[in-house]
Amino acid sequence: MEALFHALVESSRELFELIHRPMEESYYRYEGVGAGGDRSSRIDLVAEEIFSKRLAPYGQIVSEERGSFGSGPYRIILDPIDGSDNLLSRFPYYGSSVAVMEDGQVVLSFIVNLANGEFFVKYGSLYQKGSLWHHRLKEVRTNLHARVGLFEKAYANPAIVQGLKDAGLKFRSPGAVALSLAYARYVRFVLFVGELREYDIRAGLHQCEGLHIHQESNAILVAKDPGLFHTIREILLRE
Amino acid sequence: MEALFHALVESSRELFELIHRPMEESYYRYEGVGAGGDRSSRIDLVAEEIFSKRLAPYGQIVSEERGSFGSGPYRIILDPIDGSDNLLSRFPYYGSSVAVMEDGQVVLSFIVNLANGEFFVKYGSLYQKGSLWHHRLKEVRTNLHARVGLFEKAYANPAIVQGLKDAGLKFRSPGAVALSLAYARYVRFVLFVGELREYDIRAGLHQCEGLHIHQESNAILVAKDPGLFHTIREILLRE
Repeated sequence: MEALFHALVESSRELFELIHRPMEESYYRYEGVGAGGDRSSRIDLVAEEIFSKRLAPYGQIVSEERGSFGSGPYRIILDPIDGSDNLLSRFPYYGSSVAVMEDGQVVLSFIVNLANGEFFVKYGSLYQKGSLWHHRLKEVRTNLHARVGLFEKAYANPAIVQGLKDAGLKFRSPGAVALSLAYARYVRFVLFVGELREYDIRAGLHQCEGLHIHQESNAILVAKDPGLFHTIREILLRE
Repeated sequence: MEALFHALVESSRELFELIHRPMEESYYRYEGVGAGGDRSSRIDLVAEEIFSKRLAPYGQIVSEERGSFGSGPYRIILDPIDGSDNLLSRFPYYGSSVAVMEDGQVVLSFIVNLANGEFFVKYGSLYQKGSLWHHRLKEVRTNLHARVGLFEKAYANPAIVQGLKDAGLKFRSPGAVALSLAYARYVRFVLFVGELREYDIRAGLHQCEGLHIHQESNAILVAKDPGLFHTIREILLRE
């Protein structure tokens, strides 16, 4: 797992450097529809290639862009760019998300914020945070001073925006769901309402273990406080 | 202006390093209500002190936390932490915003993203982007590939969320208005609906010069495309 972790960090570093050079015009071009149903830009494909070449020795890769390929002991769920629309809009909230599975269980998850270089890695009960540019890892602890929650796809769900407003709940809506799940211990809650795909949530949900989680076919709610969790779940079920 | 610019970069570096060390518990404590009407946390006051000590020689500082103090040739509008709730929630979108005014006009604006170290500086017609960790500055150019807009305070305005949805407009709502105005050339639009204060918008509006701008007592809309600008203004006026 040590070698696999290093492969993830090295891939992220390569991708970070590529993204933060002046972007080639061609990276923005659409290149057809990926296995996940979204249109893929060339940068999605380039990012997938960067991860795949280092992860291929470890197992079968299941990716948003190319579908499933390769073989080996693990099943690796890869979202090479989480928040593609943000990256193409140069809005600094996007990353990559990887879940490594064995016998149907996630054994390691890795989520990196490619706008600032911080990453979150969970392996067994060890949940740590690091930076692409330092070697030190530190434990991810719950933040007791959170002021805001994260509501992904607020733009598509005005009735739930109304419900949260009526309950006096302040949120941000940043547009990269795996990344937002990685921040779940820091913020008050994470709510995602929209089509759920394995690439989007496998790694994120693994990192939310131990928090209150509600999952339906097209929604996820995560919160640490049981009262707040209950309030938001009621709003969700009402809609 | 060269010396003042360096004072801004140096202040930002000091603040960045302070924020990215493990945060002292005391930074989260509220310390009464600032001149802008919001509750100030100790981190807001510490950030103000970091900027003030280097900016004081240049003029009168007008700050969200302490109000107006000092004297000199310029009037300097300072928001030491734009997006305080994000910082305290460890959600990576917060910064500082500074507008330097002479004879009632902004002559220099500086907005820094303290989550990733990138900053935007406009002086006369020169509008450049840099990083706290490099010396190279580059021209800020309009991004022609934007996919999303930014809608600040979406959580308080569900009817406008509905209007944008009906018009098929996708947005993010990240929670730091000066920072979002600095990104206006990258994204499709920036919309802010809520109480406007000088600290929030002086620097940001300076950086939006040349784009389409609509300003009311409690709303700002910025867009580069005239058709899109018109569409969103209609949604805004309807509410």
